[in-house]
Amino acid sequence: MKQLNVTQKLIKEHLIEGEMVPGQEIGIKIDQALLQDATGTLVQLELEAMGLEKAQTEVAVQYVDHNLLQTDYKNADDHLFLLSAAQKFGLWYSRPGNGVSHPVHMERFGKPGKTMVGSDSHTPAAGSLGMLAIGTGGLDVAAAIAGQPYYVKMPEVWGVKLTGKLPDWVSAKDVILEMLRRHDVKGGVDKIIEYYGDGLQHLSAMDRHVIANMGAELGATTTVFPSDHETKRFLKSQKREDDWKELKADDDAKYDLHEEIILDDLVPLIALPTSPGNVVPVSEVAGKEISQVVIGSSANPGLRDFWIASAIVEDKAVHNDVSFDVNPTSRQIIQNMIDNKAFGNLIKAGARFHQSGCMGCIGMGQAPASGTISLRTMPRNFPDRSGTKDDQVHLCSPETAAASALTGKITDPRDLEDLYGMTYPKFKYPEFHIIKDDMLVAPPEDGSDIKLEKGPNISSLPHIDPLKDACQVPVLLKMGDNISTDEILKAGADVLPFRSNLPEISKFSYTVIDDTFYDRAMKTKESHGGHVVVAKDNYAQGSSREHAALAPKYLGQVAVIANSYARIAWQNLINFGILPLEFLNVEDYDKIDQGDEIILKNLRENVENRNTIEVTLKKSDGSKVRFPTKHSLSDRQIHILVKGGIINDFKERIEENDLGES
Amino acid sequence: MKQLNVTQKLIKEHLIEGEMVPGQEIGIKIDQALLQDATGTLVQLELEAMGLEKAQTEVAVQYVDHNLLQTDYKNADDHLFLLSAAQKFGLWYSRPGNGVSHPVHMERFGKPGKTMVGSDSHTPAAGSLGMLAIGTGGLDVAAAIAGQPYYVKMPEVWGVKLTGKLPDWVSAKDVILEMLRRHDVKGGVDKIIEYYGDGLQHLSAMDRHVIANMGAELGATTTVFPSDHETKRFLKSQKREDDWKELKADDDAKYDLHEEIILDDLVPLIALPTSPGNVVPVSEVAGKEISQVVIGSSANPGLRDFWIASAIVEDKAVHNDVSFDVNPTSRQIIQNMIDNKAFGNLIKAGARFHQSGCMGCIGMGQAPASGTISLRTMPRNFPDRSGTKDDQVHLCSPETAAASALTGKITDPRDLEDLYGMTYPKFKYPEFHIIKDDMLVAPPEDGSDIKLEKGPNISSLPHIDPLKDACQVPVLLKMGDNISTDEILKAGADVLPFRSNLPEISKFSYTVIDDTFYDRAMKTKESHGGHVVVAKDNYAQGSSREHAALAPKYLGQVAVIANSYARIAWQNLINFGILPLEFLNVEDYDKIDQGDEIILKNLRENVENRNTIEVTLKKSDGSKVRFPTKHSLSDRQIHILVKGGIINDFKERIEENDLGES
Repeated sequence: MKQLNVTQKLIKEHLIEGEMVPGQEIGIKIDQALLQDATGTLVQLELEAMGLEKAQTEVAVQYVDHNLLQTDYKNADDHLFLLSAAQKFGLWYSRPGNGVSHPVHMERFGKPGKTMVGSDSHTPAAGSLGMLAIGTGGLDVAAAIAGQPYYVKMPEVWGVKLTGKLPDWVSAKDVILEMLRRHDVKGGVDKIIEYYGDGLQHLSAMDRHVIANMGAELGATTTVFPSDHETKRFLKSQKREDDWKELKADDDAKYDLHEEIILDDLVPLIALPTSPGNVVPVSEVAGKEISQVVIGSSANPGLRDFWIASAIVEDKAVHNDVSFDVNPTSRQIIQNMIDNKAFGNLIKAGARFHQSGCMGCIGMGQAPASGTISLRTMPRNFPDRSGTKDDQVHLCSPETAAASALTGKITDPRDLEDLYGMTYPKFKYPEFHIIKDDMLVAPPEDGSDIKLEKGPNISSLPHIDPLKDACQVPVLLKMGDNISTDEILKAGADVLPFRSNLPEISKFSYTVIDDTFYDRAMKTKESHGGHVVVAKDNYAQGSSREHAALAPKYLGQVAVIANSYARIAWQNLINFGILPLEFLNVEDYDKIDQGDEIILKNLRENVENRNTIEVTLKKSDGSKVRFPTKHSLSDRQIHILVKGGIINDFKERIEENDLGES
Repeated sequence: MKQLNVTQKLIKEHLIEGEMVPGQEIGIKIDQALLQDATGTLVQLELEAMGLEKAQTEVAVQYVDHNLLQTDYKNADDHLFLLSAAQKFGLWYSRPGNGVSHPVHMERFGKPGKTMVGSDSHTPAAGSLGMLAIGTGGLDVAAAIAGQPYYVKMPEVWGVKLTGKLPDWVSAKDVILEMLRRHDVKGGVDKIIEYYGDGLQHLSAMDRHVIANMGAELGATTTVFPSDHETKRFLKSQKREDDWKELKADDDAKYDLHEEIILDDLVPLIALPTSPGNVVPVSEVAGKEISQVVIGSSANPGLRDFWIASAIVEDKAVHNDVSFDVNPTSRQIIQNMIDNKAFGNLIKAGARFHQSGCMGCIGMGQAPASGTISLRTMPRNFPDRSGTKDDQVHLCSPETAAASALTGKITDPRDLEDLYGMTYPKFKYPEFHIIKDDMLVAPPEDGSDIKLEKGPNISSLPHIDPLKDACQVPVLLKMGDNISTDEILKAGADVLPFRSNLPEISKFSYTVIDDTFYDRAMKTKESHGGHVVVAKDNYAQGSSREHAALAPKYLGQVAVIANSYARIAWQNLINFGILPLEFLNVEDYDKIDQGDEIILKNLRENVENRNTIEVTLKKSDGSKVRFPTKHSLSDRQIHILVKGGIINDFKERIEENDLGES
């Protein structure tokens, strides 16, 4: 029998479609689902639109950790909506202030051997417990909750062998920073990283969380750890020993790619602005003045991470020029920090404590002062993510962060031995954590009577019609190459609050290119039943946001005609029932003028049979021009498109009770 | 010898000008100054413009408690600026997260027998320690820091006799809510409230803080308590026993007005939306469903207030539908709450802890969900102050708040005896508080070398020219009756961030009335050296904001011609060197058209000698019309106006070392 690595074992156990050959599409059964609030409102609206009765996953949890500032009614309205939706559709609800999704999930729900999808890019953190956990778009998560397999191209498995033991003052964060130093932010694309080797025995489950979490920064599909005695110890400390099972690679398991890290050789590392891949030793930049230190986030969420910071600043005071912000990652962490004195020691040293949540990690407050250096134990330092345009965010370990908070300068924590006569404080995990789960609201047995609580900014997704067989609609916008999703539906503080309000967010469609688009689209929706847009190469590149398809669809977009498409956005168009046509002859692009009308006939038959689709162009002078187009959809995608998108498809299948295995 | 009450003793001790006759202007020496960050940036810019070398008060403290969310660079830039300014001008600096100004000031700086002005309306809280503490505009605070007396009309002294003892489940908040129930939000205008009587012996210093703080909601000039054995106990617990001195009314002291509250008769009270004066017994509205409870703010800031809430929720969990937000008012409070288990008990019961500061009390986050009830221990529930337009904010004691958090409904805390078999928990004050003051940064002996740290949004106040002797400037705006300061310079989230950026905030001048004003004003500043505006009765009513004079001045406003002025705004015009002229004949208003030019001559001489000031109106057809005006300035005000405003006056006097007594 073939010897398997942990990744292959996890996939094999859950494989529904396809073969485990890198590059081939596989469909896997999903056991758990994780939602956070910023993406979760749309997922819940999708579940509503699908007509889901009850979540089909073993565990699905709606966390509230992103939008906690509540500067107006929208956040609080969302919280009430998410609670009602979780109760209705059979999800757990983790209340605002209960903590960041990834550590809370690991503490209370994570289970070796299980699969999970999550509508958050750091979902892979659960790989720390021997799970296969993938971050993905909202509709994929909704589909998984509805019992559908998750489809992904089988990635390569990248074995990273850890040997030896970390030196004093060097911790898990430095391991993942070392990976980023070596491979930068695209080094993990289409790969699953699997850690193994003797070095693992000195890395606690939460240390592994740090490494798995920031695997996302390498672009990896996910990160996987074996489930071993340490995993067991962690689950036991959470009073969940029964959830443990062993999971390890076979002795002669193979990996598609190889890497080795000798832990003894690592030094404190730091990612400079403005990329997590911009990593150098701390010693290279030591001495620069700083204005802020932030401890917390899913990238350094564990009790040890806060304790080590507290042990470093104990009986001292942080530098006058430094705002020392501490974001405890969960209520459980706070309770245990009170118990082990870490909380008190941090407060005494001058910490500003914030509510449990993502906070500054996703730009919800904590913006640093202009042009000053902020040291954070967080996972990302992209430009402007902090909320300050010329920010200078550096990413580092809690050791480096706490040392720098004391001195007011970037400080190699190893220098604390000379500066303060300190020896490296050693954390001892408690046998049992203090656990109180009241802020996790269980779903009722039957939620069918529960009414969704929708504030004025939350509106249901509209019904989407199936693919029309014929249409005559105007070309409302003619664009060029490399149009990004930011141009189709921009991000930013003026737009984000409307993510659960499709009619409102649709007003921002294509405004970056043409701010008359919305008005014109609403008119042609009335007069012609819709519109098409035209572009050249690489349409809808950039962010994966679903609204860049959903909003134009709401405005009546029937089809896009382009020379080529960005991969994720192409799938999104299909998922929401917009036909992505491709020119057979690129020069036909030049024949089209904005304002021309497009006539399409026998669309269903031509799409289903993969016929050449002839487009008739009616010019403003009444003359007609014809040119051929095609599509590149798979059978599954054709099926979805003809139904008018994935929601309609699910809805029909849920009604017919035809949801495959689960 | 005349028998004096506490208020009279405090004033007599500090009287520099005038007589203690209600209604007559008095000038009093100021010992202490309190600044918060939202108003403090302008005060510090005023100190800079004055050329102040060092604060002349005994103690001045710059607190940072309002703008803590840091959703972009501006808050953090302000914090760095305020630290540098505090160091330069000789103020203490209380770092972000160190706590709300009023309780921190009471804990660490308040001193019986002293006077204080503060640029925050709840400054009277310090009256709890036997201080005379008045909330006022920024320039008054700047003037006090520069050693100037504070001028105010001598208020009436309102003696409130407290007898008996509060029943179980009723606390200090219910005392001040009873005052508001009896007298509503204008009941204290032009009065100083002085509490006395046997009932005081059961009210701790922090209980008195609760009552003094919310005296602001009665409109009182301030609130005063005697300094007695309890004051001594409090100062001793703060390790400041030496700062205590006794201060009590003489046996036969008289009050201008009389009131009595029998404490035994009080019941739990609650202020309904949307006024602190809209008070009813809790029992009248019990049973209504709630979505939020917030504990904290300067209106219930003490260790007892958090402890009692923790004792009520101990070993229970807050209701699933309730966000239970706890805003500890200072780092000292947090440390002592850890020590007495209150912190842990609140966390275990489900509290969302927030950083120490004002937070939702001034709409910095914590906005409740649309149309739902929020119970808060805060001082104010004006419409929309929470950030939610249709908010339903109720004000109550920590007892009522915590009881309601458990049940999910407005709950009379006395019902806890039946509901949970609870007896009223009795708090015992610790002999000594845990005190660690590292977050209070002392000013250096000599700050002259310190450079002000100004981020891109902070700009120095421009130089203001002295009064011109003659001018010919256009009437840029003709307005009607009752123009409010909101119309002159609106409030709101788009404007507030520019409070330390005069060139930017000036762009909003009069936009509510005419959004071409700024552009036209900038043009006429260039072409004519300025402009005038015309109004009818009660010009610049409403909020006291100084920017409504400062911004028009920046745009070149030479004078306003109106029939009458609102009191505070009239003073502000003078303070910033704008001449407030009054029509002698109201019908002359009709002779003026917007766009006419105004010619003024011999202005200095006419203003100084209180001559009738003749205005020549040059109409667009070249014809001229003349009409007479006057002003109502006092000698002191004439002096200030001619100099170009109070800053110029101080600047000159500081240079000449002519600053009176201090």
